[in-house]
Amino acid sequence: MRDVPEDALNAMRAYLRTSAFNVVHGIEIEKAGAGEAELSMLWHPEAGQYQGFLHAGLIGALIDTACGCAAATVAGRVLASHYSVNCIRPAVGERFLARARVVRAGRTVVFTAADVLAEADGKRTLVANGETMLNVVAAQGAA
Amino acid sequence: MRDVPEDALNAMRAYLRTSAFNVVHGIEIEKAGAGEAELSMLWHPEAGQYQGFLHAGLIGALIDTACGCAAATVAGRVLASHYSVNCIRPAVGERFLARARVVRAGRTVVFTAADVLAEADGKRTLVANGETMLNVVAAQGAA
Amino acid sequence: MRDVPEDALNAMRAYLRTSAFNVVHGIEIEKAGAGEAELSMLWHPEAGQYQGFLHAGLIGALIDTACGCAAATVAGRVLASHYSVNCIRPAVGERFLARARVVRAGRTVVFTAADVLAEADGKRTLVANGETMLNVVAAQGAA
Amino acid sequence: MRDVPEDALNAMRAYLRTSAFNVVHGIEIEKAGAGEAELSMLWHPEAGQYQGFLHAGLIGALIDTACGCAAATVAGRVLASHYSVNCIRPAVGERFLARARVVRAGRTVVFTAADVLAEADGKRTLVANGETMLNVVAAQGAA
Repeated sequence: MRDVPEDALNAMRAYLRTSAFNVVHGIEIEKAGAGEAELSMLWHPEAGQYQGFLHAGLIGALIDTACGCAAATVAGRVLASHYSVNCIRPAVGERFLARARVVRAGRTVVFTAADVLAEADGKRTLVANGETMLNVVAAQGAA
Repeated sequence: MRDVPEDALNAMRAYLRTSAFNVVHGIEIEKAGAGEAELSMLWHPEAGQYQGFLHAGLIGALIDTACGCAAATVAGRVLASHYSVNCIRPAVGERFLARARVVRAGRTVVFTAADVLAEADGKRTLVANGETMLNVVAAQGAA
Repeated sequence: MRDVPEDALNAMRAYLRTSAFNVVHGIEIEKAGAGEAELSMLWHPEAGQYQGFLHAGLIGALIDTACGCAAATVAGRVLASHYSVNCIRPAVGERFLARARVVRAGRTVVFTAADVLAEADGKRTLVANGETMLNVVAAQGAA
Repeated sequence: MRDVPEDALNAMRAYLRTSAFNVVHGIEIEKAGAGEAELSMLWHPEAGQYQGFLHAGLIGALIDTACGCAAATVAGRVLASHYSVNCIRPAVGERFLARARVVRAGRTVVFTAADVLAEADGKRTLVANGETMLNVVAAQGAA
């Protein structure tokens, strides 16, 4: 991944934190640049569904947010219109990573995809994947 | 909607509250029965994305959870394998409702769909819809 | 369904027949108007998959095409960017109907949904459903 | 891609041709093995939609069929319950390839994904992608 300049990355991090949901759940940007983005989130009890696995809503939030960041690196301001989530394995771990990539950035629609990995005992396992369609709101600018 | 007996509804409500995510965000069951379910959630600042609209992850959580409740009324224990979300309008409101229905309950797969409505100034507006596929884990029983 | 004027419907039928795929498989418009459309297709051997059921590709074609017609009645020229298909029951019948409706026609994106019914022995059964997202290409005009 | 033994591949090809839809549209298996499959289809006029691009129904047919073949190499007899299609670019070419891979083969559900490439003037372009969920019908066997 070719990283975005530190300034742009910090601007994107600051933007992400304007979402109280992201702050409460500790969703952070690890890397972003050139049509890719990686987010992380530590496990916390308020993230759990019934069996104590990661709640499907948070899996979706990670996919949608990571895809939005990836899209923003190439298309500026974007808004998600559709996303989908595949729950591939029970999402159990100490930390979760969402890795998103732009599949195709058209003039009006950006197609993206993401994987969600769970980290446990130093091992990473694919627990979910998904995709997001975003509409370009304005030309290249701060995400 | 033919309501489930009060006991079964209370059991389903108790089950929903075993998810810390649902409790933190105040996701509650309004009604459930005969392949349908309605959830509610009051607006709260921790629900917000960047512009202060409802975070797409919570829209997905409402859809996935409402669909799971609807499926549970006819198929017992189920696990979501896939869900998708259409972000139809900016999700702004004082309270949100998710109304789910079973489209088809097969022997192993349950197909469901849900609408998300925003309440503001006594008016309800469709802000999102989506669908969830669930796998039947065991025969009819407590959800 | 408020029907479109006969002229507009004939124009839409003529347009549908500019697709050789639609002609070969006998996909026809039954009704269209006010954000809704209904297509029909007679069973024919070239429509079959392995067990002689309707091929999933044709189920998708019916959903995508019906949704496009429904969208065209309110949004003019549109192009599908995404569609999805749920295979709910084995698609067996003498004739198939696809009924589509616009869920929300935004300025740039039109959200639609459709059901596919199989007719056999005078009975109609829901065999599939799905949804299509379309982008508005130009302002209101002939589809 | 580790190829399946020639016998198994021929059995899969013979099976594909039991679908009249596949035969009429010339959908062929190029390779299959170890959770992957590649199909090809030559452009033919009966494949066209309105502008003479590849009909979205055939894009879906290629994705669904390629994903089914990929799944069959690891999970035996499978049935698609859901698929989705992203129309990324106008699908124009002399020949189309669909490349599918198993993302996760669970005990009851197989998650797969596929890309569709158009070949024109010796160049390949990604024109669509999508995913398919399949249910395992029986234990490992001829697809």
